[in-house]
Amino acid sequence: MIRIAVVGAGRIGSIHTQNVLAAPQTTLTWLADPNIEAANRLAQQAPHVRVTTEPVEAATAADVDAVIVASPTPTHVDLIKAAVAAGKAVLCEKPIDLDLDRARDCLVYVAARGGRAMMGFNRRFDPTFAEIHTAVGQGRIGKVEQLTIISRDLDLAPLDYLTSSGGMFRDMTIHDLDMARWFLGPITEVQATGQNIIDPRVGDIGDIDAGVVVATAESGAVATIVNARRCAFGYDQRLEVFGSSGMLQAANQAPTTVRTTLAHSTDAGPRYEEFFLQRYAASYRRELDAFVSGIAADAVPPPSLFDGVAALELADAAQTSLGKRGAVAIPPSEPPGT
Amino acid sequence: MIRIAVVGAGRIGSIHTQNVLAAPQTTLTWLADPNIEAANRLAQQAPHVRVTTEPVEAATAADVDAVIVASPTPTHVDLIKAAVAAGKAVLCEKPIDLDLDRARDCLVYVAARGGRAMMGFNRRFDPTFAEIHTAVGQGRIGKVEQLTIISRDLDLAPLDYLTSSGGMFRDMTIHDLDMARWFLGPITEVQATGQNIIDPRVGDIGDIDAGVVVATAESGAVATIVNARRCAFGYDQRLEVFGSSGMLQAANQAPTTVRTTLAHSTDAGPRYEEFFLQRYAASYRRELDAFVSGIAADAVPPPSLFDGVAALELADAAQTSLGKRGAVAIPPSEPPGT
Amino acid sequence: MIRIAVVGAGRIGSIHTQNVLAAPQTTLTWLADPNIEAANRLAQQAPHVRVTTEPVEAATAADVDAVIVASPTPTHVDLIKAAVAAGKAVLCEKPIDLDLDRARDCLVYVAARGGRAMMGFNRRFDPTFAEIHTAVGQGRIGKVEQLTIISRDLDLAPLDYLTSSGGMFRDMTIHDLDMARWFLGPITEVQATGQNIIDPRVGDIGDIDAGVVVATAESGAVATIVNARRCAFGYDQRLEVFGSSGMLQAANQAPTTVRTTLAHSTDAGPRYEEFFLQRYAASYRRELDAFVSGIAADAVPPPSLFDGVAALELADAAQTSLGKRGAVAIPPSEPPGT
Amino acid sequence: MIRIAVVGAGRIGSIHTQNVLAAPQTTLTWLADPNIEAANRLAQQAPHVRVTTEPVEAATAADVDAVIVASPTPTHVDLIKAAVAAGKAVLCEKPIDLDLDRARDCLVYVAARGGRAMMGFNRRFDPTFAEIHTAVGQGRIGKVEQLTIISRDLDLAPLDYLTSSGGMFRDMTIHDLDMARWFLGPITEVQATGQNIIDPRVGDIGDIDAGVVVATAESGAVATIVNARRCAFGYDQRLEVFGSSGMLQAANQAPTTVRTTLAHSTDAGPRYEEFFLQRYAASYRRELDAFVSGIAADAVPPPSLFDGVAALELADAAQTSLGKRGAVAIPPSEPPGT
Repeated sequence: MIRIAVVGAGRIGSIHTQNVLAAPQTTLTWLADPNIEAANRLAQQAPHVRVTTEPVEAATAADVDAVIVASPTPTHVDLIKAAVAAGKAVLCEKPIDLDLDRARDCLVYVAARGGRAMMGFNRRFDPTFAEIHTAVGQGRIGKVEQLTIISRDLDLAPLDYLTSSGGMFRDMTIHDLDMARWFLGPITEVQATGQNIIDPRVGDIGDIDAGVVVATAESGAVATIVNARRCAFGYDQRLEVFGSSGMLQAANQAPTTVRTTLAHSTDAGPRYEEFFLQRYAASYRRELDAFVSGIAADAVPPPSLFDGVAALELADAAQTSLGKRGAVAIPPSEPPGT
Repeated sequence: MIRIAVVGAGRIGSIHTQNVLAAPQTTLTWLADPNIEAANRLAQQAPHVRVTTEPVEAATAADVDAVIVASPTPTHVDLIKAAVAAGKAVLCEKPIDLDLDRARDCLVYVAARGGRAMMGFNRRFDPTFAEIHTAVGQGRIGKVEQLTIISRDLDLAPLDYLTSSGGMFRDMTIHDLDMARWFLGPITEVQATGQNIIDPRVGDIGDIDAGVVVATAESGAVATIVNARRCAFGYDQRLEVFGSSGMLQAANQAPTTVRTTLAHSTDAGPRYEEFFLQRYAASYRRELDAFVSGIAADAVPPPSLFDGVAALELADAAQTSLGKRGAVAIPPSEPPGT
Repeated sequence: MIRIAVVGAGRIGSIHTQNVLAAPQTTLTWLADPNIEAANRLAQQAPHVRVTTEPVEAATAADVDAVIVASPTPTHVDLIKAAVAAGKAVLCEKPIDLDLDRARDCLVYVAARGGRAMMGFNRRFDPTFAEIHTAVGQGRIGKVEQLTIISRDLDLAPLDYLTSSGGMFRDMTIHDLDMARWFLGPITEVQATGQNIIDPRVGDIGDIDAGVVVATAESGAVATIVNARRCAFGYDQRLEVFGSSGMLQAANQAPTTVRTTLAHSTDAGPRYEEFFLQRYAASYRRELDAFVSGIAADAVPPPSLFDGVAALELADAAQTSLGKRGAVAIPPSEPPGT
Repeated sequence: MIRIAVVGAGRIGSIHTQNVLAAPQTTLTWLADPNIEAANRLAQQAPHVRVTTEPVEAATAADVDAVIVASPTPTHVDLIKAAVAAGKAVLCEKPIDLDLDRARDCLVYVAARGGRAMMGFNRRFDPTFAEIHTAVGQGRIGKVEQLTIISRDLDLAPLDYLTSSGGMFRDMTIHDLDMARWFLGPITEVQATGQNIIDPRVGDIGDIDAGVVVATAESGAVATIVNARRCAFGYDQRLEVFGSSGMLQAANQAPTTVRTTLAHSTDAGPRYEEFFLQRYAASYRRELDAFVSGIAADAVPPPSLFDGVAALELADAAQTSLGKRGAVAIPPSEPPGT
């Protein structure tokens, strides 16, 4: 049994907690959150877990093999370092940090200590995306030429959240940029367009609420990412890979397969899944499974911290591109020590 | 150029007329209808055509190679005989006659003279059904085991029409019974269930307005036909063939591919095609093309008059089954002279 | 917490056990199976459960509030009676018994004691079917006129199983017949057609391996059920309700939404769910939830034992219809004491 | 009857010719092509048409009311001017000219003379796109926020053609840029990314064979256009409009609705329509119909010559953006005389 500490009792910490409790090969030993009420509430489901308001205490405790970091972004780097220094494996939610230099520094720190750390880009574990990735790898559609991602959130997040989110590209697009790297390999150029169409207050805080990022890969393939912070019909999460001999697509998902046909509207499906908690429920479970299997085999699988830094670089470049109204070249980079 | 006489200037005669006028290998020489106004109206599109109120005159005229019979059912047998006796090829709308004995007699008459006659079961020429038939013949889904047809008309036909239609099975289901024979081969048993759910006046004239026919083939395969005389969402024409290694389905058709996604209804298509004039427009064109090519090659293709008799036998058996609340065995039969 | 005894450690008992363990409002206290190894194996997931080879011991134990009967069919009646006599609520897998008289006798026994018993027709709890049922009840498609069910198993069950199954209609079609009653209300006539197309050994034991049942409801609506015991492309479970103003359909389900487009095949989905364990996983969970909520409110919800008897009557009638090649009328019946 | 001269007997001239011959309200009086054999071949279908190798002769003949210009691009401007000067209505294939200044000059010329000219952006008349445009105009999806177009040709055109095509943006993307203007209104910025992934010879002639254009509208909406010059699975022509309350999509089209389900591939459709001749057959017919109805009402409908110039401006801007790796602002413009 792998003993897990979950740091952060918010929405995502709660998903991880439930998955740790349900997985046969894991046991939850610690739960940490400065908000003791949130931590205690979550701990009710796990009678024997120890609760603390000190994240580092949980992340370094003797009866912990692995730490899941689901606390606010500014705390990630210190927690990763502390956990790695204590010999723990780490699964950290994105992003490593909003500051690229701090993220790179963390990467170097972990690499220097041979630390085991995995980035929580859970979409790589979505069964549909993963099946497409496997099929692409098997050459099912020939050489990959274009990737198109449409990714829209249900409701505009609260302004408070947006203000500290690092901007749409670092907060939301970063998932899609990781998908672009996963499907296309290294990216060499990013070009971004931003929109303020949903709520003028987003513009007031200097952010955008929709936009498009076009990323060119070293291979010559191009990824097109269309984002919006609000979508009337649910969580819009589609992806298609176009290759020299075919195409693979991920359709949206709904809770049922009901098709309604009325006089002037035929074969209508139900509303799509509401949000990531529903849409990516299986991704979080499979991510935990991969993390835990990796620990058991002493080989934490990708996405790595380097993948986390690389996606952040692309998000930063998109932000720069937005300001200069032009393409931004991405210098080649490699994981430390390679 | 094959010279064609069209008998009947109604809805179906009009389709045939337009197709004859548009086809490069045919010329329309005669148009006949006792209703001279209808005939003249239709003839406006064809400046050089001769118009008559005497169907037999058109069907036997010297400048006619082939006759398309689209007049009322009671006139079919005499017209087929007259045309065949005059050496013309015939394409006759279903049914041959509402009386099975008269239909069989006509078949014997034509066979004895080596006449060339084709039944207007146009659905065999629908591109979708034809593609499925070809794929089935190529063994794409293994051995055929079950056929399911859902066939619903848009609006209940006028009572006048229904009264002289021979009943739902002979008028409407006969198309589906021909499909069953086409896909499954000879039928050995028919079992029918009737409904009166749409309009009580249909029951008053001794007919049904919906129902199900289950037909068992010599091969062991079973066809299930679900019919209704009224459908709120357009012309519902679906068919699926289930085989030992797969399934082939024909979906409904709509004028456009628009998909509408709103808050609580996703990927909705537009209303289906209204009725057979729209849904089977291509079938009529391809039927004419097959007929004409057959004439040119001196081998009028199926469906034959025998197919017309056989489908009528099944419709009659369904009617009998309805009355006795039990299955009706179909004796084997073969085309005359085989 | 509702204390549950599960009787039967086979495939379905295992599903129920896992759901009882996972549900927040239930606790598993007993697990019974004459096969002690199967029981112990299943009990490994539940440290504090008591295991017995005596089903009645578990079904009547003091620390049990409700019994889930998932043992072989011949044991159902005695277990239901014992549990009800001991004041326990019962959830019993279908069928009550293969003998209609024994099933009716059991129903009378339970009714006389005011027993609380529910039939495990889990499909009523499938989210898709349930959503359709709700929409139909709300009048979304007008008056219900036709129900079409296509229900095919993945692989032919072992001959041993088939030999004691009571025949395809009582074993497999019974689920669809319950759906017919659920959507259309009381059934007044059944007409059946059988096929032997998959494996001749099924015919050798006097059973069929495919077939069609047409059931007419008191309301005038008709249900058409197409069954096969083997399906090359997964578990084929479709249902459509046709009403005076529209149609509601349940499509097949697959593990992912991947769509594959290659040169000659576009938008292809993945293989459907394998079998009922996958396809109806949510149904079993929601069924348990309804059962447990019913116990808490002292009102065990439908499907009732009466529903179990009524579906068995229809399966028996289908069997009779098969032999006599004709329709079988279903006499009206009501739950005892109504 | 409107008397039409068709200039150009190539692939597109041939489509127009057939449509003119089939339309009830038009008659074909002249057919012009310097390649007399091509002209004569096409004229075989129209016995009374006059054939010439002199386009201007046809375009200005007395027995001509309207001219369809389907000759090579460099001839367009002179033909438009000649026809307008002779008082004819003109329907001209895109682009007006590869040189923006010449195109603008032509626009001024026609406007000064009150000429009636329409641009052959036939996609505006595609039934699916037109239905979406109407629905958008009716506010069915609220305020338009994002437009995504995926537009891929079947096979890479011959190098000869590509060399004189003006480049992918002017030759192929121009249709999509017109769609962007049609759905979003005036465009204020264009950003382009190019790819050389299909055939290195395209790069050798200084062109791209795939790419992405992102166009921002004055309204704040953004259009994303993904293009490729070769597509393994047919002619890929999709479009979706995302609005504040919903989404409208145009799916790809296939010749039949056959769905094939095999062991590991379910609901697969047939190959899509091959190319624009099939996919946009109805568009060309409806375009002609709108043109002719406009002439009859003395109000030639859009797309206008101004629309042709505006789309060319955007294509030029995309080309500039490609070179400078940055966004290009589009100055506002208005039709002459407004």
